[in-house]
Amino acid sequence: MKNTFALCSYLLLLVTLLGLVFSNCKANQVDNLDELINSRSSENAPKTLSWTKEDAYIPKYYHTSSIGPSPSQEEQKLADKITALPGQPYYGSNFDQYAGYVTVDPNVGRDLFYYFVESPANSSQYNPLVLWLNGVANVLFLESPAGVGFSYTQNDSQTFFPTSGDKAAAKDAYVFLVNWLDRFPEYKDREIYITGESYAGHYVPQLAYTIVVNNLFRQIANQSVINLQGIAIGNPWVDDFTGVKGLFDYLWTHALNSDQTHELIETYCDFKPHQPISSICINATRNAFAEKGPIDSYNIYAPLCHDTSLKPSQTGSVYNFDPCSDVYVQAYLNRPEVQEALHAKPTQWSHCSGDVDSRVSVTATRYALNVLKLPIVTPWYPWYSENEIGGYAVQYKGLVFATVRGAGHMVPSWQPERAFNLILAFLSGYPSPPGSPK
Amino acid sequence: MKNTFALCSYLLLLVTLLGLVFSNCKANQVDNLDELINSRSSENAPKTLSWTKEDAYIPKYYHTSSIGPSPSQEEQKLADKITALPGQPYYGSNFDQYAGYVTVDPNVGRDLFYYFVESPANSSQYNPLVLWLNGVANVLFLESPAGVGFSYTQNDSQTFFPTSGDKAAAKDAYVFLVNWLDRFPEYKDREIYITGESYAGHYVPQLAYTIVVNNLFRQIANQSVINLQGIAIGNPWVDDFTGVKGLFDYLWTHALNSDQTHELIETYCDFKPHQPISSICINATRNAFAEKGPIDSYNIYAPLCHDTSLKPSQTGSVYNFDPCSDVYVQAYLNRPEVQEALHAKPTQWSHCSGDVDSRVSVTATRYALNVLKLPIVTPWYPWYSENEIGGYAVQYKGLVFATVRGAGHMVPSWQPERAFNLILAFLSGYPSPPGSPK
Repeated sequence: MKNTFALCSYLLLLVTLLGLVFSNCKANQVDNLDELINSRSSENAPKTLSWTKEDAYIPKYYHTSSIGPSPSQEEQKLADKITALPGQPYYGSNFDQYAGYVTVDPNVGRDLFYYFVESPANSSQYNPLVLWLNGVANVLFLESPAGVGFSYTQNDSQTFFPTSGDKAAAKDAYVFLVNWLDRFPEYKDREIYITGESYAGHYVPQLAYTIVVNNLFRQIANQSVINLQGIAIGNPWVDDFTGVKGLFDYLWTHALNSDQTHELIETYCDFKPHQPISSICINATRNAFAEKGPIDSYNIYAPLCHDTSLKPSQTGSVYNFDPCSDVYVQAYLNRPEVQEALHAKPTQWSHCSGDVDSRVSVTATRYALNVLKLPIVTPWYPWYSENEIGGYAVQYKGLVFATVRGAGHMVPSWQPERAFNLILAFLSGYPSPPGSPK
Repeated sequence: MKNTFALCSYLLLLVTLLGLVFSNCKANQVDNLDELINSRSSENAPKTLSWTKEDAYIPKYYHTSSIGPSPSQEEQKLADKITALPGQPYYGSNFDQYAGYVTVDPNVGRDLFYYFVESPANSSQYNPLVLWLNGVANVLFLESPAGVGFSYTQNDSQTFFPTSGDKAAAKDAYVFLVNWLDRFPEYKDREIYITGESYAGHYVPQLAYTIVVNNLFRQIANQSVINLQGIAIGNPWVDDFTGVKGLFDYLWTHALNSDQTHELIETYCDFKPHQPISSICINATRNAFAEKGPIDSYNIYAPLCHDTSLKPSQTGSVYNFDPCSDVYVQAYLNRPEVQEALHAKPTQWSHCSGDVDSRVSVTATRYALNVLKLPIVTPWYPWYSENEIGGYAVQYKGLVFATVRGAGHMVPSWQPERAFNLILAFLSGYPSPPGSPK
């Protein structure tokens, strides 16, 4: 399928039933939501809705190979290969891993960090490439924008924050991808899928649009293009109005808020952009967060992390999800020998990306979908995974909405089989796992 | 607290966050709901809302001891004692169990079956008595009305169905209780709590009202009264309007129904009693059940029972809830030696009580509570159990509404610690487990 793309023919929204989501920063939630709500009444409210082709077109960028006296792509790729990660089982793994940096702007020293997991050696050389934004088949994990995780920019003023710099973040990710494909040329013609979750509800479609626009220009110039096949976003933050309204409706309908607080929000908050917000509304939203108390917003039914010490009984199996795993991950990624093995520059790695810090509910996603008014191809139906209803799906024209039943925000952690079967269907071009009895 | 009662000072509604509930019959749900909806538009719609003192007053009933040549109460109690249940661990249990029949109408041969678990021998002789209706501290499980479980009536036309015979069921339960207390006289002055779930939303308050009314008459006549202290109902079916509306709102807000079906229900169903129901509404409610597909309505996130054979790896621990446990229970209770050990007449025991077969959601309970317009004493707050939020509570004047976070219908099966701490608080007179940090 070289030189063709079918963007939007399988736009798969993976949203969870349970997971209230807020980006990937666990900072104070009330403050961040206030900030978000207030930001929309300020004069500098982010405007990310309108993109022109000119916004997305990148006429010129530095190929990594064209930057001064640097090693060849082949040498760089070899250097990126991970020999072994500290703590990895001694018998190794049956797949190759790479990690390192791709420069997106040598002038200000902006490099994006990636982690790449290749399919097992004996699997097909035609397996597609999946790019995962926002955090973690052949899966290429990209920490984006610069300033997030191990990705950095030497010039601080050039740090790109998502609320002000969605377009810059998309351009950086595009340049990263072109340069990364130079380093891994065997993937240049491979089918590529772009995925992500939470604020990637912005990143993913914006990067896809950037690819589509640049592909158009490059086709005219008879240049090679990126073989983009589809995008998938999970629990996506799509827009502020549906996101915030959906969040508070979710809290009430899941019995986490009182009738009184919900009624105040219904009456006094309209969540429309650029409207002044009443103090009654602000107080009511504060109450909404206070009332639900300290629960895991990623999975409202999950236990909290009370004891961060590693227990000997822990198997580490994904089937026994440990609510403290975030803490272990953060500790692990900050060990110097781990950073060295990953070819990352020594830094303080943290879960917090500092961007839009609020939760994304299935309710919000449905409100956002309704705004699109897409024609329905296949109405609401349950899809199956291992004999159980794995979730529900609606096939719209050019887009599939799918839920994962009983999953928190980190879908593969809570429902590994359902997540695997759903992503497999997505990569195979099915709207949902095939063969589901109806 | 002899000769006093404080009914309604601790009316505790235990409702789950997750459990869609329908009575205790797992028959075809769509048919039953249709039946319920249609029944309200018929001329013979059940009228259970108005009770007068005359309805509840029972001037004369047969004491078991006054029925012909029967064994003495002491002899009957001894006969009811369960020596051992088949499959019970060989070292026995540290508590006593009794089971048997109490006659409520010797003329038509109507006997109610009970199963009674006494607190461990070394615990206080002042431990209260808890009566559990609808199925299973000192806990007295009563299968009511006659025709349910092992309870029976010899005259079939005298079988009391709940939709037509709520008052008769309450009178039978009252007569049962008086006669049972004759058989277990050490409990006559003990504090008594009446509990139950699902359709017990009718049974429990109606029995409580019957007790209160008869206590009043008996106090005037200087006779002993039943020491009723409080009632608790879990996932109660309170009334049709809030129950059915709450059910469909729950299905939609928990992403089990499509937007389209929900909108049809919102527009074309008003669920008001004695209104003709449009065919659009009936079709839409059919769709609502079809769309959610075959999931466990008792816990929408739980697995289904696929393999009913007992696996050797099963520990039987309540912490590893087995979705097939209903099947084992049914098989166990139909073993002749078990029926014999329980002093039950040989019969085909089944989960199905044949009464109102629809689910009760937390949404429905809140709608029902709002109808009461009770003043709030303590507004919405989280209550704690073992360091986690166990659920939320609102203390109204004379009534507490409490949720159990992450529990399905059978609350103790899914959240044993939370259920235990909540019922302990209820019996201690607290609105929720004390010492919860706020």
